[in-house]
Amino acid sequence: MNESIGFIGLGIMGSGMAANLLRAGFNVTVWNRSPGRITPLAVAGAAVADSPAAVAESSTLIVTCVSDTPDVEEVILGKNGVIETIRPGSLVVDCSTISPTATKAIAARLAASGAHLLDAPVSGGSEGAAKGTLSIMVGGDAAQLARAMPALQAMGKTITHVGGQGAGQMAKLVNQILVVVTMQGVAEALLLAHAGGLDLEQTLAAVGGGAAGSWMLNNRGPQVIRRDWRPGFTVDLQQKDLRLVLETADQLGIPLPSTAQIFQYYRALQQLGLGGEGNHALVKALERLAGMEIAA
Amino acid sequence: MNESIGFIGLGIMGSGMAANLLRAGFNVTVWNRSPGRITPLAVAGAAVADSPAAVAESSTLIVTCVSDTPDVEEVILGKNGVIETIRPGSLVVDCSTISPTATKAIAARLAASGAHLLDAPVSGGSEGAAKGTLSIMVGGDAAQLARAMPALQAMGKTITHVGGQGAGQMAKLVNQILVVVTMQGVAEALLLAHAGGLDLEQTLAAVGGGAAGSWMLNNRGPQVIRRDWRPGFTVDLQQKDLRLVLETADQLGIPLPSTAQIFQYYRALQQLGLGGEGNHALVKALERLAGMEIAA
Amino acid sequence: MNESIGFIGLGIMGSGMAANLLRAGFNVTVWNRSPGRITPLAVAGAAVADSPAAVAESSTLIVTCVSDTPDVEEVILGKNGVIETIRPGSLVVDCSTISPTATKAIAARLAASGAHLLDAPVSGGSEGAAKGTLSIMVGGDAAQLARAMPALQAMGKTITHVGGQGAGQMAKLVNQILVVVTMQGVAEALLLAHAGGLDLEQTLAAVGGGAAGSWMLNNRGPQVIRRDWRPGFTVDLQQKDLRLVLETADQLGIPLPSTAQIFQYYRALQQLGLGGEGNHALVKALERLAGMEIAA
Amino acid sequence: MNESIGFIGLGIMGSGMAANLLRAGFNVTVWNRSPGRITPLAVAGAAVADSPAAVAESSTLIVTCVSDTPDVEEVILGKNGVIETIRPGSLVVDCSTISPTATKAIAARLAASGAHLLDAPVSGGSEGAAKGTLSIMVGGDAAQLARAMPALQAMGKTITHVGGQGAGQMAKLVNQILVVVTMQGVAEALLLAHAGGLDLEQTLAAVGGGAAGSWMLNNRGPQVIRRDWRPGFTVDLQQKDLRLVLETADQLGIPLPSTAQIFQYYRALQQLGLGGEGNHALVKALERLAGMEIAA
Repeated sequence: MNESIGFIGLGIMGSGMAANLLRAGFNVTVWNRSPGRITPLAVAGAAVADSPAAVAESSTLIVTCVSDTPDVEEVILGKNGVIETIRPGSLVVDCSTISPTATKAIAARLAASGAHLLDAPVSGGSEGAAKGTLSIMVGGDAAQLARAMPALQAMGKTITHVGGQGAGQMAKLVNQILVVVTMQGVAEALLLAHAGGLDLEQTLAAVGGGAAGSWMLNNRGPQVIRRDWRPGFTVDLQQKDLRLVLETADQLGIPLPSTAQIFQYYRALQQLGLGGEGNHALVKALERLAGMEIAA
Repeated sequence: MNESIGFIGLGIMGSGMAANLLRAGFNVTVWNRSPGRITPLAVAGAAVADSPAAVAESSTLIVTCVSDTPDVEEVILGKNGVIETIRPGSLVVDCSTISPTATKAIAARLAASGAHLLDAPVSGGSEGAAKGTLSIMVGGDAAQLARAMPALQAMGKTITHVGGQGAGQMAKLVNQILVVVTMQGVAEALLLAHAGGLDLEQTLAAVGGGAAGSWMLNNRGPQVIRRDWRPGFTVDLQQKDLRLVLETADQLGIPLPSTAQIFQYYRALQQLGLGGEGNHALVKALERLAGMEIAA
Repeated sequence: MNESIGFIGLGIMGSGMAANLLRAGFNVTVWNRSPGRITPLAVAGAAVADSPAAVAESSTLIVTCVSDTPDVEEVILGKNGVIETIRPGSLVVDCSTISPTATKAIAARLAASGAHLLDAPVSGGSEGAAKGTLSIMVGGDAAQLARAMPALQAMGKTITHVGGQGAGQMAKLVNQILVVVTMQGVAEALLLAHAGGLDLEQTLAAVGGGAAGSWMLNNRGPQVIRRDWRPGFTVDLQQKDLRLVLETADQLGIPLPSTAQIFQYYRALQQLGLGGEGNHALVKALERLAGMEIAA
Repeated sequence: MNESIGFIGLGIMGSGMAANLLRAGFNVTVWNRSPGRITPLAVAGAAVADSPAAVAESSTLIVTCVSDTPDVEEVILGKNGVIETIRPGSLVVDCSTISPTATKAIAARLAASGAHLLDAPVSGGSEGAAKGTLSIMVGGDAAQLARAMPALQAMGKTITHVGGQGAGQMAKLVNQILVVVTMQGVAEALLLAHAGGLDLEQTLAAVGGGAAGSWMLNNRGPQVIRRDWRPGFTVDLQQKDLRLVLETADQLGIPLPSTAQIFQYYRALQQLGLGGEGNHALVKALERLAGMEIAA
């Protein structure tokens, strides 16, 4: 625990993750674009920097947790960015979900300054961030991962090394395909159950434990039938991640027919003003088409 | 355990289920269209009847476990069928997966003879049938279910009462939607993982425990990356069940866009001669389109 | 013109077709299930029979033009049906759109009575029926087609012999795939044009004459942008025909992914109460998903 | 015809278009990245410049006809680009198919130099370019269009003003949706016709003249059944244009489910090495899935 930790990006995920680092005894210096989010961390013992560059100046391991590829590029490579002050040997751990291709480019820029990058996107939602139970998919050098492990273990429960730089991001995109296609199955299944007159709670109980079971069914299914659309992960973020999935598939030259279809549904939901609801609101696209609401 | 059990249909599922009834101490009289399957059960202590009618004559609780709606209609309502000899008060438990609408019609015919029907389709594959760990979704009268419970518990682990006659079949169709759409997600996810250069085993480990996790991912994913296409449940049977799903959705007037899409893929697989492979061979439809094989 | 014509089924199509036969100088005996439709034909000179059997008794060439497979089976094979009185050598020309498989079975039944069948489904909507400009796709024996040609030419403009019995129906199903998938293209194209701020009339003019052009675009596109949903061919009938398409594809073992998708959209439209609108109301499924109306 | 024409981009489309301008009597100065294409134009009387900037220096109306957004940006805004030398009052007519959004940005840059832009993407393939029968969809100022009209009429037959800057590109994207979705309908229709045993030529004749008819059916259908994959427009270019369609739809927030699906099929075709075939090779994606070849 000799690392001085920097933490850039105190959003719904980053706030919980930084708090867990403090709780685990790390020295943490934080920065966030909008200052409102900073106070609770400062109260909990974090030092506060006035730019990403200032964070990098006082840290040996810098975690970034922002929204999208341009945001990561800005805090690392932009004006007053990490790249301006980072010391040779320092390590950036990017917990954002961004493009695998962009990740490699950022890594190359950091390498030119003698610094390292691990891509380490997370899964598990705001609850997982708060409780320190995230799944973290890590791409990059094994020795750097070993170095980052104590900090990662303060934030997550399952830390998996999936390959070289960019592989963490690729695994996260794989994860997102599974999440949304499974959710589409939940939507169609619940629509049939509803139209077919089944008791929806009993149906979930009957099918959830076998070959039809999934995390989405068992966790989001009950939310759907209660019509509780509070997000673990929002439609807007899901849409952003699916855009990365489809761009990456396009670069790799592979077809993803169902994912492409579901992207269209999420696009429609955003247009309907539902971007802030949970990603299980995917059922509402089907409901609109069906002219029917699923309800217990 | 005063019931004399009849068992009609000793296929890949029925053989295991009938064996479990014998193992649990029930008297069981069996019948199967092709006689080859009968010997192991006879050796295990079953009485052998020469027609469904003969089974019904000597049984108070008759389990049917055959392929499709016409098969159930034949063994119950056809020549030398159960209906010819069934005694008032006897109970038929249909463990086949068939049309919810046809189920109600068969129930009405049995009721005219003073007999009862539970629809009780099962999930869990041949392993579940052999081990007695099936999930059984039951539609029909609660008192009849209570009566059948000891026999059902000999065959399955999770027995859920989901509603009136036909509801068990409806729940099974709901189950099948979940199975295939989730599997399509697994296929697209693994294709991206493969094309993106990830270690597939590590990827499964990284994503299987979180929001992306499902029974299909955790059980069929490893089979896919080993290219082991042995069936728990065949493409042919999956196709048959999806046909029931889509016919039922059509009767109910609801759209099921992804399920309809995936039905087309299974149709293609059958045409390609893969009907006897496991339902996870769904990945092969995507692979053909992609011109690429997923492999560890 | 020595044939005595019988005409069974005076719906939106049949009324115009029978009137054109009278206009061309044929003796025509008509029957319709609901009597209201009969008067105008009687006024125009048709004899009126009180059953399909009575029609067949007094006719050598019997045209049937009803809704679906069971309707054709009823008027030909049912009680008081054509089969009861048809004379050896008589010819039935079925202008309904029904299953190719059922067509062959009906032909076999008629052949047993020494009678012939041509399947001759039509395309061109109620306007085409009224004006005698239908396209007629004919399956069956060439000599029988030659015999029927004068009558067919009174009803249609393009009469094509596409093969043996059932081939006319198969060609009609091919026609229906083209109609609906092309219409889905029109829907998506107009949605982009609308959302992209284009003048929709100008856009139709700009793209309609080249590689993007189609009958649906040029005829239904202007209706869509005027939001005129009056049917040439209704959603309900389109849905019925697509069901035949998908059942036939299932029997043949071929995948039709886009058609299967669009069937789901038509299913949704019916559920929303739009079954009586024109088949170009397909755009409304997309509009619901998009939360946006296409309008000039 | 007082305009001195510059022509940038002598690909499969541009070569024919520039030749038509010469044929119509215009003075034309040409530039192309790879010099091989220049000779025939020089022989036909074109002056040859050694950069886009040199073209702009000697021209008052500059036509650009290159592949994609970055290519247009390079020849207009890049080093030795049009922007370096273009004179106030000059007009750029961009006949490439590129992003509507990028078009507006390029127009703004040209406007800062006192120059004008019309976006004028074309449709009609290499035949249309050679014969001067292209459809040209024009966005931008009406007075500039009037000025460009003589040149446009030398290259195309149908010139339509669809709106302000970017509207031409938007209309072209609308055109591309129609082309590919209609083609998918042709593919599924021909697969059913083939599997159903129809004579394919007769089928095309029977359905092509009515509501099922389209340019793609009537022009590409016969190519498909002869298995003639020579391009009017290649899979690679179609894929590029669909990418623009989907990016634009994403920016506008609209769902395009069938287009998104078909993009995946074109992606697959490229991966299979078929990028240089005509866009009607879309049928091969369906054929791979079906395990069956459509052939007369």
